[in-house]
Amino acid sequence: MIQVDLNSDLGESFGNYKIGLDESVIQFVSSANIACGWHGGDPLVMQETVAMAKVQGVGIGAHPGYPDLMGFGRRNMTVTPKEIKAYVQYQLGALMAFVMSIGEKIQHVKPHGAMYNMAAKDYSLAKGIAEAIYAVDKDIILLGLANSEMIRAGEAVGLKVASEVFADRAYNADGTLVARTLPGAVIHDTDLAIARVVRMVKEGKVTAITGEDVAINAQSICVHGDNPEAVAFVKQIRKALEDEGILISKLGNFIR
Amino acid sequence: MIQVDLNSDLGESFGNYKIGLDESVIQFVSSANIACGWHGGDPLVMQETVAMAKVQGVGIGAHPGYPDLMGFGRRNMTVTPKEIKAYVQYQLGALMAFVMSIGEKIQHVKPHGAMYNMAAKDYSLAKGIAEAIYAVDKDIILLGLANSEMIRAGEAVGLKVASEVFADRAYNADGTLVARTLPGAVIHDTDLAIARVVRMVKEGKVTAITGEDVAINAQSICVHGDNPEAVAFVKQIRKALEDEGILISKLGNFIR
Amino acid sequence: MIQVDLNSDLGESFGNYKIGLDESVIQFVSSANIACGWHGGDPLVMQETVAMAKVQGVGIGAHPGYPDLMGFGRRNMTVTPKEIKAYVQYQLGALMAFVMSIGEKIQHVKPHGAMYNMAAKDYSLAKGIAEAIYAVDKDIILLGLANSEMIRAGEAVGLKVASEVFADRAYNADGTLVARTLPGAVIHDTDLAIARVVRMVKEGKVTAITGEDVAINAQSICVHGDNPEAVAFVKQIRKALEDEGILISKLGNFIR
Amino acid sequence: MIQVDLNSDLGESFGNYKIGLDESVIQFVSSANIACGWHGGDPLVMQETVAMAKVQGVGIGAHPGYPDLMGFGRRNMTVTPKEIKAYVQYQLGALMAFVMSIGEKIQHVKPHGAMYNMAAKDYSLAKGIAEAIYAVDKDIILLGLANSEMIRAGEAVGLKVASEVFADRAYNADGTLVARTLPGAVIHDTDLAIARVVRMVKEGKVTAITGEDVAINAQSICVHGDNPEAVAFVKQIRKALEDEGILISKLGNFIR
Repeated sequence: MIQVDLNSDLGESFGNYKIGLDESVIQFVSSANIACGWHGGDPLVMQETVAMAKVQGVGIGAHPGYPDLMGFGRRNMTVTPKEIKAYVQYQLGALMAFVMSIGEKIQHVKPHGAMYNMAAKDYSLAKGIAEAIYAVDKDIILLGLANSEMIRAGEAVGLKVASEVFADRAYNADGTLVARTLPGAVIHDTDLAIARVVRMVKEGKVTAITGEDVAINAQSICVHGDNPEAVAFVKQIRKALEDEGILISKLGNFIR
Repeated sequence: MIQVDLNSDLGESFGNYKIGLDESVIQFVSSANIACGWHGGDPLVMQETVAMAKVQGVGIGAHPGYPDLMGFGRRNMTVTPKEIKAYVQYQLGALMAFVMSIGEKIQHVKPHGAMYNMAAKDYSLAKGIAEAIYAVDKDIILLGLANSEMIRAGEAVGLKVASEVFADRAYNADGTLVARTLPGAVIHDTDLAIARVVRMVKEGKVTAITGEDVAINAQSICVHGDNPEAVAFVKQIRKALEDEGILISKLGNFIR
Repeated sequence: MIQVDLNSDLGESFGNYKIGLDESVIQFVSSANIACGWHGGDPLVMQETVAMAKVQGVGIGAHPGYPDLMGFGRRNMTVTPKEIKAYVQYQLGALMAFVMSIGEKIQHVKPHGAMYNMAAKDYSLAKGIAEAIYAVDKDIILLGLANSEMIRAGEAVGLKVASEVFADRAYNADGTLVARTLPGAVIHDTDLAIARVVRMVKEGKVTAITGEDVAINAQSICVHGDNPEAVAFVKQIRKALEDEGILISKLGNFIR
Repeated sequence: MIQVDLNSDLGESFGNYKIGLDESVIQFVSSANIACGWHGGDPLVMQETVAMAKVQGVGIGAHPGYPDLMGFGRRNMTVTPKEIKAYVQYQLGALMAFVMSIGEKIQHVKPHGAMYNMAAKDYSLAKGIAEAIYAVDKDIILLGLANSEMIRAGEAVGLKVASEVFADRAYNADGTLVARTLPGAVIHDTDLAIARVVRMVKEGKVTAITGEDVAINAQSICVHGDNPEAVAFVKQIRKALEDEGILISKLGNFIR
């Protein structure tokens, strides 16, 4: 039976500031990427989100980001591999404390925002992230962009890796994402987006923006819970996958 | 043989800012309280300090503080027991990641500055701290002020606890510290300070500011590495204790 | 003609985090307390909020708070008068830059949260705040709690001061607020709250929780824009005051 | 008579962290770039540094940086022109409050670290900075790298601009700095460095790394007070310039 994971960023509220429909979206995903207090999240939010993930039976992942709360971790920063490694260790450990406290384990790490985007293209940064995870616990899965440097670095370091795909993004012929700044980068047709996701999962293929088929490893699909429309879309994706007989399952169940 | 621990705050540098003669003082202590990035410290500093502690064979402790870098964690803040618990879990976990990465274990937790002072007097805060440690790893020792609420809370929660004394501070008849704002609170006579420490360790007694003898559990002595004079004083204390046949030994060696 | 000001906290969003129905509530108030980036707000939010206040013809005020974004500036911190003075100067100056940039002037300063509450009771802190304002621009009004140390300190320093009252809070016989932790501190009956406000403005009197009438200087009424119910309540208060022939007018129009 | 300014970064200490020999170096410079609390500095440090600059008769400048205390503002961040403008307004205003409080005026703005380096090459960022200054006070001088986009943007916006040179850096044939990563970028020979500075000031020329003479506008020389050797070098530069009959004078005295 074909399995696929649905992952969403959760626990990005901070102090008095609430963001994301966490309680809604968590019901439809199988893995949660939980912010670790740098780009979003705080200790109380982390604690609550970890508890909620346990109740829902969702795989618990750390979602480390750059030290840029004002920019929500979405701004590129020039950090060294040594710095990024230490930043990931710090944030992973912080989340791990809450996870250990309820007798659970961290399933995966998915870098956030600019850290994710930079590491997808820069092998030395990706390797820093992978080494951080391996040093802390070599059984944790690195969830990264399909066909990116993160996947290569994770494998080279000896981690289990999971490839993530996007329903609403166009792909280049080499399997990388079309940059958001380019025309056609975002797919606005919901039905088309869902059809593409189903094909990625079932056939391991996606049609590139230049027309040819590209091989893609769709082990996890990134979804969002920012607003009611986003949550509705997650339900649609989930239903479409289940209608095809695909099992929605957290990474820890099938990534080896 | 009588054993006692010497502990010092380390790893409080931050980014471009250097503070403390860590390389000097670590040679004379048996346990290190390592800042966790809130009142001081950053991921790179934590990594380096943990590595240095391992090399020196010094017990590794987490030194969590309030989220107040500008005030170096020395300002009282009204936090709830729930908040303080989550803050300690977060910081303990962050340090633990670096410790696990080099195959070591966290020996103890000693709260910093205002968190230490407030928890010494407020049982509910002390209990929040103790519960945080217990939840993460019940084998970690809570290092707190002798005769304080921290010691009581640690024992009530089921942790191993270690009582800390100060060489240069006067004590009240109930075994608590004389407030710094009162006359005579700080002992400036070095020889007297050392003699008092030796007696606390050997006899478990100290002369209160009001003249009577007070029972005190001196399992660890707090020393400082802020400047060359402080480091010289640490050497003096260490020598005086060794001359009395007392073994300087990290907490993990003798706290049960 | 009787005049009164309606003030509300605005511009407390931060980065990706949105808070408050600023666009709605600003239409019903005469003065805006704009966060300065410490407890809430950021430079872009400050810029937008200042521009919005200008368009709406609302008096522009600085709303400085403690350096505690995680606690939204609502947690007491032990700061010295010297520190609080510098903190207010810093934040006032930061907002002033945006105000000067559009050819406007700062009308008032209203401290936020824990800074407000602590300064209401601690004359030395209140004096630090008043001195900060006076040093930067002695024509700026200090908006503080009626019958509090802030009002006394502002007058002593030589500032123009404005007394603020709360529609939904009970008062003690000495004109101070009943602490929130006590029963009856908050008035939940909307009609009663509005009637009390109208009386405070028209007669300068309020019935204390102990039954007697207390003199109170109601120059500005604190209202909130946190949610649609809060905004609806602001509209009600405004209508009730206007129905009584009271003019809603910003502080700068009538405070001398 | 030829005049030149000597500028140094000051007030970069933060809370408990001390950095820079401010009291020493300020005696030899004519302008101070004072950190504004983002990459370094805090309100108390700003207040003290502004007071010290007034006593020494040194021109007071704002030294805004990126929101990256952990990286000391030295790491590139992708910020928009709109963001950089608001960040400079905020920090300039904050410093201005302390300057106004002692009856002084801001003489200049010099961006810090990565903000300086990025704006030197990116006209849109440089323009954002220049617009920020112009909006707050169009009489403030923009101090930027000679032959850089900052100088061009400052002039285009209508500001007074001052060109800064470095004694110990090599220049390209187009008048820009040789990147630090390239061989020969830093001039370690003290005598040569001083001779180059004297020539830049007297003749407006410097020998490029490729051998030819380049025109350069040396209105201010950047010096450092990080350590005793740096301060000694400042004294040497100052003496060499004075021996040549050049007047060390703050920017406000001769920039029109």
